[in-house]
Amino acid sequence: MKQVVLKSYARGNPKPEDFAIEKAPVPQPGEGEILLKTLWLALDPLIRFAIDEQRLTGATQVQLGEVMYGPTVSEVIVSHHPDYAPGDIVEGRTGWREYAVVNPGKSDYRGPPRKLDLSLAPVSTALGVLGMPGQTAHAGIITIGRVQAGETVVISAAAGTVGSIAGQIAKILGARVVGIAGGQHKCAALRELGFDAAVDYKAGDFAEQLKTACPEGIDVYLDNVGGDVTLTVMPLLKHGARMPVCGFIAYYGMGLEGPGPDRLPGFFRMINSKGLEIRGFGGFIVGGQKALEDIAGWVREGRLKYPEAVVEGLESAPQAFAGVFSGNDNVGKLLVKVAEAS
Amino acid sequence: MKQVVLKSYARGNPKPEDFAIEKAPVPQPGEGEILLKTLWLALDPLIRFAIDEQRLTGATQVQLGEVMYGPTVSEVIVSHHPDYAPGDIVEGRTGWREYAVVNPGKSDYRGPPRKLDLSLAPVSTALGVLGMPGQTAHAGIITIGRVQAGETVVISAAAGTVGSIAGQIAKILGARVVGIAGGQHKCAALRELGFDAAVDYKAGDFAEQLKTACPEGIDVYLDNVGGDVTLTVMPLLKHGARMPVCGFIAYYGMGLEGPGPDRLPGFFRMINSKGLEIRGFGGFIVGGQKALEDIAGWVREGRLKYPEAVVEGLESAPQAFAGVFSGNDNVGKLLVKVAEAS
Repeated sequence: MKQVVLKSYARGNPKPEDFAIEKAPVPQPGEGEILLKTLWLALDPLIRFAIDEQRLTGATQVQLGEVMYGPTVSEVIVSHHPDYAPGDIVEGRTGWREYAVVNPGKSDYRGPPRKLDLSLAPVSTALGVLGMPGQTAHAGIITIGRVQAGETVVISAAAGTVGSIAGQIAKILGARVVGIAGGQHKCAALRELGFDAAVDYKAGDFAEQLKTACPEGIDVYLDNVGGDVTLTVMPLLKHGARMPVCGFIAYYGMGLEGPGPDRLPGFFRMINSKGLEIRGFGGFIVGGQKALEDIAGWVREGRLKYPEAVVEGLESAPQAFAGVFSGNDNVGKLLVKVAEAS
Repeated sequence: MKQVVLKSYARGNPKPEDFAIEKAPVPQPGEGEILLKTLWLALDPLIRFAIDEQRLTGATQVQLGEVMYGPTVSEVIVSHHPDYAPGDIVEGRTGWREYAVVNPGKSDYRGPPRKLDLSLAPVSTALGVLGMPGQTAHAGIITIGRVQAGETVVISAAAGTVGSIAGQIAKILGARVVGIAGGQHKCAALRELGFDAAVDYKAGDFAEQLKTACPEGIDVYLDNVGGDVTLTVMPLLKHGARMPVCGFIAYYGMGLEGPGPDRLPGFFRMINSKGLEIRGFGGFIVGGQKALEDIAGWVREGRLKYPEAVVEGLESAPQAFAGVFSGNDNVGKLLVKVAEAS
């Protein structure tokens, strides 16, 4: 089978050359273990934390030469565990490989592989709208953002998995929703998803366009990026605005400090003078089962769409993952289709 | 009478030379107006916003040649208004002058001069513990910080008015309270006020001392300063910690940007990875009447002390105000005693 290992830790944006494709024997499940065949692999920006040279977070770290970490949907091929049977489809974190052996009795804090209900939606959605990204979007808009009908909600990286779901949830709640994304293709896709407006942060007049799209100011800003985009949004925040911070992709390639000047003084000034409420989350506050039930209902009713961008074959993963950081043209969930189910 | 006018807008820290002392005729009250004699003048750091060269906030601006803005306690000398009588003591914002005329019917958003209950405490407390600073401390610890018994609370600028009150309120709630202040004199004063520990940010081993004082990490950080102090505190915050931002004195003399490197990347990383809840307030969210009643009760019971640092005479104001920013040795409320009541 094929697997992808880490060749060098990421400095700045990850590059395809940071990874190598290897052949390896298909592992054999022992007592209590199950053999999984990878069907889908999710290329989430969060994976960047697992390969950071400086190890600034508490995230799982991949060592050099080890198989890359990553969320997957797999088919159970062999089971030596009573809770799983061949043919079951599960969501787990088995990494960038075609087959993996897992011991469901010895799981990490996120629990054993989750068996999927095949009647709900295609199984790839377990990595997106019907999985942690969906729960994260739900938490950002509902639990933390406390979005109300009539409010103006702005979302950065709006064409990403969390952003595209979050925007649609805010629309379902009756808010006016403005997405920020890179390029006209992504912006058009957001309008098709029902966003009231979409603004291209690469446009020369981005700040003016954003202001025009938010004539009454901004009540909630769901931030996935930080950096220049966020510093352009903040002057438009209303007094008492809420700002759930789900990610900060502009800074993933940096340590604790970036090139000057220091922008923290202006950030503090805005926190204080606007009475902002800023709350970090993402990977922590998930909406749990209730969020998944809400989302499954909206998907069933056709009110929540889940665009997917699919690349074929495990060997495509390094190039596609690097594209996440260098600015690709994908809308929605970025997935590698590794194999068909049996 | 004497008055202090603004000679030059502040760049960086205010200097005594930015102000001039003038003689002026005592103003005469017209119909509906009252004549006030200034007894006490508060030298709050917040006043810095009123004289900023760059006008970065929406605060009242003092023009060059105009009398300086500032909160005061005054005695009513002449009244042409039915709600006020000669001898009443009021709290208002009549500025750096010995006498002022006010029309209570034409007040700014903060309302007409507030008549004081002389039985509660000395009238100077209307500018501190029994006024807006007390309400701000109450909001920071109770409404925003949601401090619980047994939690560890850290307060920066802890020897200031808000900080010294906030720390005592947190102690009343049963928290472990650690104050940060500049110099051994201030730290000793904090311990006398009942703080469990006080750490000198000017000490070479400040970060280690702080860590030792917070062996289990920090649940709530009430920030009055920003800058290096805050960046030293943040790594000790627990997951989900609350951080009410009451002020940011380290940046008052700066615009939106300071000298590099850019510290915003590390700030975002901590917001996100620690799931922090950061909320700006100060001058906005005040606890209202309920806060004043709580505080008056604690003062009466002797559980809440209100240290005051008093300088004599209006002509001392420029020098004393400049000292607020250059690091003075005062503990608690900094007041100018302008005159005795009749």
